[in-house]
Amino acid sequence: MSARGRVKSVMEDRSVYKSVGRAEDLSRISKRVAGITVSAIKQMPVLASKVAGAVSLGQGIPSFATPPFVTEAVIRALREDEGIGKYSLQPGMPELKEEIAHHLKRTRGISVDPETEIFVSCGSMEALAGAICTLVERGDEVLVPSPNYASHIEQILFAEGVPVFVPLIEEEGWRIDLAGLARAVTPRTKAILVCNPMNPTGAALTCDEARAIAELAIERDLFVIADEAYDFLVYHPSGHASLAAISELKSRLIAAFSFSKMYCMTGWRVGYMYAPSHVIDQVLKVHDAFAICAPTVSQYGALAALRATNGRDGEGDRFIVRLVAALDDRRHLTCGRLDRLPSLFSYQKPQGAYYVFPRIVPAGIKSMDLSLRLLYEAKVISVPGSGFGPTGEGHIRFSFGGTEEEIDDAFDRIEEWASGAGIGL
Amino acid sequence: MSARGRVKSVMEDRSVYKSVGRAEDLSRISKRVAGITVSAIKQMPVLASKVAGAVSLGQGIPSFATPPFVTEAVIRALREDEGIGKYSLQPGMPELKEEIAHHLKRTRGISVDPETEIFVSCGSMEALAGAICTLVERGDEVLVPSPNYASHIEQILFAEGVPVFVPLIEEEGWRIDLAGLARAVTPRTKAILVCNPMNPTGAALTCDEARAIAELAIERDLFVIADEAYDFLVYHPSGHASLAAISELKSRLIAAFSFSKMYCMTGWRVGYMYAPSHVIDQVLKVHDAFAICAPTVSQYGALAALRATNGRDGEGDRFIVRLVAALDDRRHLTCGRLDRLPSLFSYQKPQGAYYVFPRIVPAGIKSMDLSLRLLYEAKVISVPGSGFGPTGEGHIRFSFGGTEEEIDDAFDRIEEWASGAGIGL
Repeated sequence: MSARGRVKSVMEDRSVYKSVGRAEDLSRISKRVAGITVSAIKQMPVLASKVAGAVSLGQGIPSFATPPFVTEAVIRALREDEGIGKYSLQPGMPELKEEIAHHLKRTRGISVDPETEIFVSCGSMEALAGAICTLVERGDEVLVPSPNYASHIEQILFAEGVPVFVPLIEEEGWRIDLAGLARAVTPRTKAILVCNPMNPTGAALTCDEARAIAELAIERDLFVIADEAYDFLVYHPSGHASLAAISELKSRLIAAFSFSKMYCMTGWRVGYMYAPSHVIDQVLKVHDAFAICAPTVSQYGALAALRATNGRDGEGDRFIVRLVAALDDRRHLTCGRLDRLPSLFSYQKPQGAYYVFPRIVPAGIKSMDLSLRLLYEAKVISVPGSGFGPTGEGHIRFSFGGTEEEIDDAFDRIEEWASGAGIGL
Repeated sequence: MSARGRVKSVMEDRSVYKSVGRAEDLSRISKRVAGITVSAIKQMPVLASKVAGAVSLGQGIPSFATPPFVTEAVIRALREDEGIGKYSLQPGMPELKEEIAHHLKRTRGISVDPETEIFVSCGSMEALAGAICTLVERGDEVLVPSPNYASHIEQILFAEGVPVFVPLIEEEGWRIDLAGLARAVTPRTKAILVCNPMNPTGAALTCDEARAIAELAIERDLFVIADEAYDFLVYHPSGHASLAAISELKSRLIAAFSFSKMYCMTGWRVGYMYAPSHVIDQVLKVHDAFAICAPTVSQYGALAALRATNGRDGEGDRFIVRLVAALDDRRHLTCGRLDRLPSLFSYQKPQGAYYVFPRIVPAGIKSMDLSLRLLYEAKVISVPGSGFGPTGEGHIRFSFGGTEEEIDDAFDRIEEWASGAGIGL
């Protein structure tokens, strides 16, 4: 069978997707769930788990281990503190919420009431899903700069809302289209959802852009839902322009934060939401129905992480600085490797997060086809651009969270594959 | 201020509830969320956290610590296995799903495909919420034996379904009303939701009752959603009658299981769902939008727990046997203490789980009033019966998960309070 034939047969074999979202029988399934999918970001690792020796530029997992100032604190508690195995209070451990408020003060200059304006969630995803279910009535529209993180689309669709995609301006570094956003507002618009820095493009808002979004939201009476999971990861010198720092936005801002990326804790599933207390009150109902509380073991880890960062000796800050520096090295490495493949990929240099979202240069190659060929033929895991909304097609997402060796290995394989397959070279 | 006045003022002071579910402004909140509440089970601990020295008969948390065969395995992995800090595959760690299949075979005699018929969730709650959102279309009816676990009601309402309450027969030990269930079926009925053993009543299905539910579901083409979080905790000699063991039900059974109670891991937030693969496929979409994956740290803990239980040396089984024996002692102690308060409480002896749901004997005392008076005046945490559906009013839930000292202390306080307050004595 030819390589191309192999890919076709994979695409047509529904059993490949069996455990990742295709169903034989949708007749008895609710519309809200029948209408959504498992994001390609999670489908690819499931497919890849059956491909021996694949190297990953796929899911957004930094190669680093959770730092010892987190794990050792958890180990101590596992041996000495029985509370670590029990439910926490439903909105989160009070001492963790206090530390989060302190962290937001330190990093955003904002005063937050830890009791009423914060809750601790099972990762920022649970907070976002809960907030979207809370704010979005059936038929409400949510503006989404596109391409964007796939799960945000599914969360809006799950709430039976309408995602309204406002294309980013690719040729200007995936800049946000402020005029386009303003034009897209209708009487049904409920919110603007912004991931900043952005996944999958690696774009990051400037302060002026953040302010302009806030002004639009205030003028048109919209909520702003901000996913700031990558807040610490902005490579340009002016740093992160946090929507949470804009005080005029406070009454209409729902911001989700994560410990996953900053402390290499993706598997711990702990994050938090900052929002007006009357919104938190509502989202907590969803949290109650889905989660009871965030995992207590992980909350202990999060508390140790923040204490190390907010504390005097700055161990946490030192860890983050080294993490950012390492990821910046990987960003340059990845861009350099992409520069050697100009007939295959054309890209905008990412300013934040650890993703690059190159355009596929050769005409007529679908992103899912390319991703599957890279997986099965080059043994490199990527995520097809089609997984990131309607403007994602024709692109592919590479994560540079992996080690430099992994990145080099992956690009060596891609180069060899491209030359062998005669594609784009 | 009189004691009664104190309770009234607490009830009227909305600020008490501020962080637990009351909102100033519902006008911009979706109907699905405006229509649900945070369960009283979680509200009471939040209120109680501000009452110094209260003793708990409230939330269902066993007093025991997570056993060392779990914590020490996690500690080893935290030091030696970087994978513990990273996302697992979205449906769960394959080796954990294998062990779960083995466990279901061993305890239910059923053959389960770990790849397609199981997924690992953030506690059984996330699995149940996801399944209900998946199966229940707006307006669909779900039969619920009542009184029942509060969160199941919220999950149905969140999915914009209609919970149809079929009263349990209190005077016969909260026996399930099979004829009542059959009468309640309409063309809009989608599922029967059964918690077995039951929360808050401590009732447990007999084999015949489980079979009758299965037959009704097959005859009327319904799904059965089984919450078996307390499966190991049945005190009568015939043991647990698992709906998951009824092979004819397989194509329409969605069963949720938990590590929380069996291994004293309530805070770890890890459980799993067993269901037909085409249902799992759909629920995984909701799992993806809300959770990404169950906490990996907790999955390592769950894996260690099952390995200790399924393994040859049976350390896990020995732990569970001791746990059940200790809880049985507490059950007898609790019933004995209730026997000394006949003018205040009349109860059905629980056959499973660690709850008793006595009727409040004196006329005219609302369960929330009694719960708040017990909290603020006797400093004993309980959960008002009104939190468990329409037939819960007039009752109160006591958990006997606490130590014998705590149970005795709590009932000493209740006796003293009742005698001082001149209530029911």
